[in-house]
Amino acid sequence: MSASTQSTPSKVNARKRSLSELDLQQPDMRIHHDKMDFINLTTHSGNFFADPIPLKWEEEDPELRGPVVATTQHPMQRNAIGAHSGSYCIYKALAVACGKLDPNYLPKLHMTRPVFNIGPFPTWHDRTKIATMDPWGHMVTDVFGAYIRKGYDVRPTIAVTKAHIELPEVKEALRVGRLKPDGKILNAEGQAFVSKAAVEPVWYLPEIARRFGCTELALRETLFKETNMMYPELVTRPDLHVFLPPIGGLTIYIFGDPDTIADESVPLTVRVHDECNGSDVFGSDICTCRPYLTHAIEECVRTAQQGGAGVVIYYRKEGRSLGEVTKYLVYNMRKRQEGGDTAAMYFNCTEQVAGIQDTRFQALMPDPLHWLGITRIHRFISMSDMKYQAIVSTGIRIDERVEIPPELVPRDAHVEITAKVFVGYHSGAAYAEVNEVSAVVLTCSRVRVWLGLGFRVIVWVRVRCVVPRDAHVEITAKVFVGYHSGGGRRCQRGERCHRMYGGFRVSG
Amino acid sequence: MSASTQSTPSKVNARKRSLSELDLQQPDMRIHHDKMDFINLTTHSGNFFADPIPLKWEEEDPELRGPVVATTQHPMQRNAIGAHSGSYCIYKALAVACGKLDPNYLPKLHMTRPVFNIGPFPTWHDRTKIATMDPWGHMVTDVFGAYIRKGYDVRPTIAVTKAHIELPEVKEALRVGRLKPDGKILNAEGQAFVSKAAVEPVWYLPEIARRFGCTELALRETLFKETNMMYPELVTRPDLHVFLPPIGGLTIYIFGDPDTIADESVPLTVRVHDECNGSDVFGSDICTCRPYLTHAIEECVRTAQQGGAGVVIYYRKEGRSLGEVTKYLVYNMRKRQEGGDTAAMYFNCTEQVAGIQDTRFQALMPDPLHWLGITRIHRFISMSDMKYQAIVSTGIRIDERVEIPPELVPRDAHVEITAKVFVGYHSGAAYAEVNEVSAVVLTCSRVRVWLGLGFRVIVWVRVRCVVPRDAHVEITAKVFVGYHSGGGRRCQRGERCHRMYGGFRVSG
Repeated sequence: MSASTQSTPSKVNARKRSLSELDLQQPDMRIHHDKMDFINLTTHSGNFFADPIPLKWEEEDPELRGPVVATTQHPMQRNAIGAHSGSYCIYKALAVACGKLDPNYLPKLHMTRPVFNIGPFPTWHDRTKIATMDPWGHMVTDVFGAYIRKGYDVRPTIAVTKAHIELPEVKEALRVGRLKPDGKILNAEGQAFVSKAAVEPVWYLPEIARRFGCTELALRETLFKETNMMYPELVTRPDLHVFLPPIGGLTIYIFGDPDTIADESVPLTVRVHDECNGSDVFGSDICTCRPYLTHAIEECVRTAQQGGAGVVIYYRKEGRSLGEVTKYLVYNMRKRQEGGDTAAMYFNCTEQVAGIQDTRFQALMPDPLHWLGITRIHRFISMSDMKYQAIVSTGIRIDERVEIPPELVPRDAHVEITAKVFVGYHSGAAYAEVNEVSAVVLTCSRVRVWLGLGFRVIVWVRVRCVVPRDAHVEITAKVFVGYHSGGGRRCQRGERCHRMYGGFRVSG
Repeated sequence: MSASTQSTPSKVNARKRSLSELDLQQPDMRIHHDKMDFINLTTHSGNFFADPIPLKWEEEDPELRGPVVATTQHPMQRNAIGAHSGSYCIYKALAVACGKLDPNYLPKLHMTRPVFNIGPFPTWHDRTKIATMDPWGHMVTDVFGAYIRKGYDVRPTIAVTKAHIELPEVKEALRVGRLKPDGKILNAEGQAFVSKAAVEPVWYLPEIARRFGCTELALRETLFKETNMMYPELVTRPDLHVFLPPIGGLTIYIFGDPDTIADESVPLTVRVHDECNGSDVFGSDICTCRPYLTHAIEECVRTAQQGGAGVVIYYRKEGRSLGEVTKYLVYNMRKRQEGGDTAAMYFNCTEQVAGIQDTRFQALMPDPLHWLGITRIHRFISMSDMKYQAIVSTGIRIDERVEIPPELVPRDAHVEITAKVFVGYHSGAAYAEVNEVSAVVLTCSRVRVWLGLGFRVIVWVRVRCVVPRDAHVEITAKVFVGYHSGGGRRCQRGERCHRMYGGFRVSG
């Protein structure tokens, strides 16, 4: 299981390069901020300072497409708004401010090239498939080498490497026999061998606008105004259509042979995961995020061992892209709700705090799948209708949707799962009985009963007990519409619960 | 172990509020972007559009300090550059652009208030202690309630809640007896009970500049230029000294009673952890990040069980704040180095790619410790001299520094640890023999030998074997300066290695 650092022969490497340094002008270092005795508050298209390298997003040939140039060093030729490294451009600026980084430093990129090949694919020049990343971003020293040798500051926005990963949950799966080692994808010690790619956001604004159903002008003005005037070039440079926003990017983990991913006949398992630090790192039991992720990794390993491949995409979209502060404010509101933390109120609390339930905008999500050449996903590990719809609407076929097994769901997280079923997430067979429109969440114990529909109902036999921290018993149940004046069947302690939670004990 | 959602009585709640809505002007909604038929590319101090709420960073009384107002809704009274939610302000802007979020929505913050009390402390009005967050940021509905009731858009930048966390490593520690359950801090199922706070960055620029050794003017101009002109108000609004940068924030996890943290006589264990997604979430074995984090959590649990408290601070500073793309580029370079991935080249590769080794700037780091009222740390779980120096230089006393036990270090990560010792990180007893200036890293097997000092050396008896993926054996060893012409003692398979790795087998 050695980590090969040799690039596999690339179709692109074999391409005849027609562009050489002789065809290019010298980058204009004369017009540099440091050399000006005034500060330009913004640049304007059509004036002296603006002579951007042409960037034609939908050109198939990268030499015609042109490099993304987001340099701070020769701003005349810059052809994108924003700066490299997403949010971390702020730290780079601090480094220059305190004199620890030379603002004119050019990265030495030899020996950083990808350790395996990706693409190119026909989707790479289709804006409806790829507009949130630069498909050539990992190959800049190759396809834009002439620019770099001429002195242009062209940098990668994608980096491709290999690694070994060791998750306790995968080791546990080995131990109990859910997974078996094969020595190649997964060894006996529980280490999985992966290929991976880190991707920084590169937005082609006309397409972002189209996906959002607004004009490019309206999108740009709103981005500018609603951030309190970040990047006036959004307004003053209509000639620059590419934006590098100061946000987090995404990471792609590949199990198995990356070269099989684009082959529809080879099984492919995929999960798209939106970051949740509290669960993914710290194991918070109020949600299902890490269990879902590790379950997906197991599935990916299994598929790869069968000769297929597995792909996990990890997006930096904490708290549904509302951020962690909003997330905790919502937690507090949920816990303080009369009746306790309940399914029906799950999304309502978020709307009260943030004005909206979710700002992840899955329409922006499928692009890395297209970048990998995916046209068919055999097993999609997700309960999200939003993600499913976003992917299939861009032409990728999904054969099967796989939900999280109930036994992997932490106890406080059943409110989350129930809420998601309640509003129409795909639940699969495991949660079929909650799909009913008339599903009602009952809280009992301590004689508190909350009824979503205003009815007192008969609780039918098939119950699943969920016990959040505050010791209410929440029951998701199939409901017969009917009336009841009192009493009713209370959930017996331990009944059905035991099957769900093993050694679970009701507290309080 | 129920999660109490009641606020504990607060010294601040008891404070007599002198400010009421009657003292305040109505926020000026007339001057709003949507109502203007032109777009203001930036605002300027001293002109009609600029009438910021006074914000006096070092005032002790919050009513004199004033709220941080970063609204998009009544820009005249805005007193900070930037927008709420860090990077996620971009997603909020998208939500407005596609019509899903009302730009005039005001959050309903009732029931979101902190579930336990923090502060206030004398450090809260000392800029040298706190300048990267708003110490009142979790209490805005309380201390700035008059503004909110008057219609000002004042939002929290900190949210405080409680949770249960379940980490597989903690469960393992229980299983093997390193930890014992007490039912309060840690239960028999391996769940730990925590208090936690999410913090968004709020920067007081004059102090940031002082910590960086430059003028505020130079800092602001550099932030502006090196991000390709993000936020001209950095230049045009010298009257606004507060900046909400579009970066990630931090999360604080507290084990034990938060009220004991400020008590110097009560044991306190602290770890400050900089994010590493590849290890913290995915368990990449090239580094030690997650093992260090989980080890620190164990130590925090233990201290809390002894009646003390534990604090873990998780910073969003991926790849030393260079970002994940740069990180993977550096990995590729390290692996391709002649002689393989070695300690001496560890930092050099980062400098080649990024021009600098580290942009985390630990001078910005101690502020949340001061926010919690910490003046003494009994056990500091970190090998970083930079972090240690940053903390003690702000007046917090650190009694003991605790390194990661070697048996928790993954195999490929020994290059990282060795490199850190090689350049002077605190290593403690476990790594004492690598502290020697003459320490040399040998690679053997496959008859490849790299010698840092150009000598062939005698390998002494006490060796520790580290086997990276490419099957070189790296030995960190005490070195006798001497000469050897050939042969020498090779590491016997399994010898000493077994003790380090349990069932470790040399591959390849």
